[in-house]
Amino acid sequence: MTLITPDEIQGAAPSSASPTPALADTGGSRRRGGRLARQALRAAPLTDDIRPVRPGMEGGHYQVLNETDILRIHTAALEILETVGLADAIPTCIEAVTARGGFLNEYGRLCIPRALVEDTLAIAARKFVLHGQDPRHDMEPWGKKVYFGTAGAAVHIVDPVTRKYRESTTRDLYDIARLVDAMDHIHFFQRSVVCRDLPDPFEMDFNTCYASVRGTSKHVGSSWVHPDHFDASLEMLHMIAGGEDKWRARPFVSMSNCFVVPPMKFAEDACRCLESAVKGGMPILLLAAGQAGATSPASLAGAVVQEVAEVLAGLVYVNALKPGHPCIFGTWPFVSDLRTGAMSGGSGEQALLMAACAQMANFYDLTGGVCAGMADSKIPDAQAGYEKGYNYALVGNSGANLVYESAGMHASLLGFCLESVLMDNDAIGASLRTVRGIETDDDSLSVETIRQVCIEGPGHYLGHSQTIGRMQKDYVYPLVGDRTSPKEWVEGGSTTIIDRAVKKTAELLRTHHPSHISDAVDAEIRAKFPVGLNLQ
Amino acid sequence: MTLITPDEIQGAAPSSASPTPALADTGGSRRRGGRLARQALRAAPLTDDIRPVRPGMEGGHYQVLNETDILRIHTAALEILETVGLADAIPTCIEAVTARGGFLNEYGRLCIPRALVEDTLAIAARKFVLHGQDPRHDMEPWGKKVYFGTAGAAVHIVDPVTRKYRESTTRDLYDIARLVDAMDHIHFFQRSVVCRDLPDPFEMDFNTCYASVRGTSKHVGSSWVHPDHFDASLEMLHMIAGGEDKWRARPFVSMSNCFVVPPMKFAEDACRCLESAVKGGMPILLLAAGQAGATSPASLAGAVVQEVAEVLAGLVYVNALKPGHPCIFGTWPFVSDLRTGAMSGGSGEQALLMAACAQMANFYDLTGGVCAGMADSKIPDAQAGYEKGYNYALVGNSGANLVYESAGMHASLLGFCLESVLMDNDAIGASLRTVRGIETDDDSLSVETIRQVCIEGPGHYLGHSQTIGRMQKDYVYPLVGDRTSPKEWVEGGSTTIIDRAVKKTAELLRTHHPSHISDAVDAEIRAKFPVGLNLQ
Repeated sequence: MTLITPDEIQGAAPSSASPTPALADTGGSRRRGGRLARQALRAAPLTDDIRPVRPGMEGGHYQVLNETDILRIHTAALEILETVGLADAIPTCIEAVTARGGFLNEYGRLCIPRALVEDTLAIAARKFVLHGQDPRHDMEPWGKKVYFGTAGAAVHIVDPVTRKYRESTTRDLYDIARLVDAMDHIHFFQRSVVCRDLPDPFEMDFNTCYASVRGTSKHVGSSWVHPDHFDASLEMLHMIAGGEDKWRARPFVSMSNCFVVPPMKFAEDACRCLESAVKGGMPILLLAAGQAGATSPASLAGAVVQEVAEVLAGLVYVNALKPGHPCIFGTWPFVSDLRTGAMSGGSGEQALLMAACAQMANFYDLTGGVCAGMADSKIPDAQAGYEKGYNYALVGNSGANLVYESAGMHASLLGFCLESVLMDNDAIGASLRTVRGIETDDDSLSVETIRQVCIEGPGHYLGHSQTIGRMQKDYVYPLVGDRTSPKEWVEGGSTTIIDRAVKKTAELLRTHHPSHISDAVDAEIRAKFPVGLNLQ
Repeated sequence: MTLITPDEIQGAAPSSASPTPALADTGGSRRRGGRLARQALRAAPLTDDIRPVRPGMEGGHYQVLNETDILRIHTAALEILETVGLADAIPTCIEAVTARGGFLNEYGRLCIPRALVEDTLAIAARKFVLHGQDPRHDMEPWGKKVYFGTAGAAVHIVDPVTRKYRESTTRDLYDIARLVDAMDHIHFFQRSVVCRDLPDPFEMDFNTCYASVRGTSKHVGSSWVHPDHFDASLEMLHMIAGGEDKWRARPFVSMSNCFVVPPMKFAEDACRCLESAVKGGMPILLLAAGQAGATSPASLAGAVVQEVAEVLAGLVYVNALKPGHPCIFGTWPFVSDLRTGAMSGGSGEQALLMAACAQMANFYDLTGGVCAGMADSKIPDAQAGYEKGYNYALVGNSGANLVYESAGMHASLLGFCLESVLMDNDAIGASLRTVRGIETDDDSLSVETIRQVCIEGPGHYLGHSQTIGRMQKDYVYPLVGDRTSPKEWVEGGSTTIIDRAVKKTAELLRTHHPSHISDAVDAEIRAKFPVGLNLQ
């Protein structure tokens, strides 16, 4: 079967004077039939074996640090843990860590000797699955396997058309979860906006978790400001799982936990929540989110050193409480624009920091969680696009296991745009294609194909079996990205990607209603807890 | 001197419950004075020793191919050159190449044995400077040093506000050259649009070169469809240089030459132009611009193999004419959207292909020229942004010496947007920052800084001498990118990057008038040649 025939495409060879192929501008009714047929073929879902990109492909082609750099950072982090230590440890933390070799220094800071870090690294959890409610979405985030997901605690929703910022709500959070549920290239959902319609902290924490697990069957991350809030959520998760034993066998929610206030200070309430997660069998994203030049060193290497030290401290703490409890190595060094002190999540420096941290987690052979895609731009314009593009590509190719904050984020985490989830899904898909890389087996090298086409064949590859065979296996096609010619684009209304994403987002929100939680279980939850999400 | 004081920035530590720093949203009159002072400092030009990024930084942290992949591609290219060869060689080419060991096979194709390729690689020009009219802009594009520049032969100018496409003119070309002249992160200028106001091919070729060298003192690339056109331009270049000897000592224009029509066919007129460049002492960009799935294999590895083979053939040809004539290894495998056959310059596959080609040029230790930044989007929207972002980052970090097509391009090379030059300059600047990487010397690792701040200091890094010292040396700041808080952004009119670029572009076009060519020389040129550019 020949899908592409040469008469459908004029001027396949670039002219000798110009490398600009004339292909794109050759609309005409004659080709429409073939094109529509191919588009229909492409619109059909791809089976897993021929998908061009998949969750959990292996990264690692981009390595900003060499081995010496990595060892220097590791050594510096160890030195800081032993000689500077962390302030404000709570009694249970001090007790657990000093019992294993930690000590309080003259300033009352909890110091961790090198041997204790090494002992911890020897027993820390590795190769644990992060489950989805639907096992189809289970992730195996180890080695250099790469998964993209959301995160954040944006306080605003951005309308990309009116450019207005408004306060985010529980309904927004649920809608974002539903969108993520439908995206091919966004593999997990961590709560991305604050439910500002719920002023009560308990209700907010409870409903943040509820709206997230209700909206998507992918793995969820959430956070809690108080252990009591956590306990209520955990009870709900048991109900959804069908019992505590089933929850513990397949925990499908992890706790995003800022146990540290950089530089090098424990956060009391967060530590108490962390201890609850350990007891409740919930994986913990150990988050150290310093901001270079403000709460961590302005030097990029120094920012990495501090965040590595802090997360190692968290890892020692958790493993002192319960050896082998699953933790994600969450080094999140943020960038400041040093002219103003404001965060700059979209900068090139940000990509460097996160890619370096991904390498540090790989060095420890731990599941690493970093960030990419935190645009400084307040709206999905070209600035947001390029800021996200270079961050996705470099952080993804570094071999980061879990890439948080990767969809929807604007204003350096202060604003979230629902339509950007769809745009970002396209950019992440393209970045994942680069993570896959280039195969160089005999068929790929194409010596025989080139010989056939040049000597025996028609002098082009349009209808060649290799071309047909690789059309779906090797190439990623965008969902809201546009590749039409200028002529076709004008005929289609000269749309921007915002126009197309607005339309597609509305369509998805109208049609995509995940039903992985049964009505019976939902009613049970609503009877027991103050669910703030009205789905009628 | 303390530039940043803590009282200017509230809430430097992220709250324990949320990693979102509150820094960005804390406007207030109290901080304005300090901020304005810092902004004024930043507005002053940076001396070269403290610039955070520079032309010609060393890339190479991203390597999509491993050594085995590279050798396989090299071997496959050699096999094709020897067994398939190239069709349509002109007599002078056949004569020169067969005299050195090439042969015509039974199909009349010019075949090149492995030994001849190896002999050529042994004598090919290396480490040649690409000169600017102003020596400040001289480039040393070898090793893994990275320079970004324009290219292309777009036939339309895109208005980013009205979204209208119109035909490009000589004046556009000159204006684009002037914009590039003013951009920090765009290091050379290859003609980017076709002068469609000049229907006569001679006048078009002549004025393309004239408008380019008149508009910028950076290195220029241009192209010619006929040797006679080239000779007239060369005479003009001699006049500008102050004589043929001075031109030959510092040739500041290179010829972009599509000597091959993929797959594996010579282009007659282009080959004649190439021979003129060799005689005239002009460096040649040997361009092979196949399109995967149409004029080169759909398999990514195969597309690289074919383009490497074709450019090696060009290299053999040039070195057979004149050993050691400077050539740029211009492997430009483009991507097709296989659903339609149209080019897709903004895809992830495109970044892979170009990054792989950069590695092949590095493998041969030749000056490599590839592309990045060819957005599929017709306008500078978020799609264009992310397409450019991941292409810049990966191709730049691959260690490509010369990155063409990197500014202004839309619609997969069919459209050019002047305002995008400024936006792309920002994205390239950020990408260059990633090329620079992370230093891990003792001061950068910051052990002592962290100790001071945590034990002796104020518990933050805002006023620390390291922060002040690295504010300008380590961090790149955007020209039209925006990093204000949502509140400040609304106060400033809720602008998009297009709004800001439109304003700044108009300002630059009004004020930036390069005068590196004296009025006397210009008058001399105008007296002799049909200059189509009216600057009154």
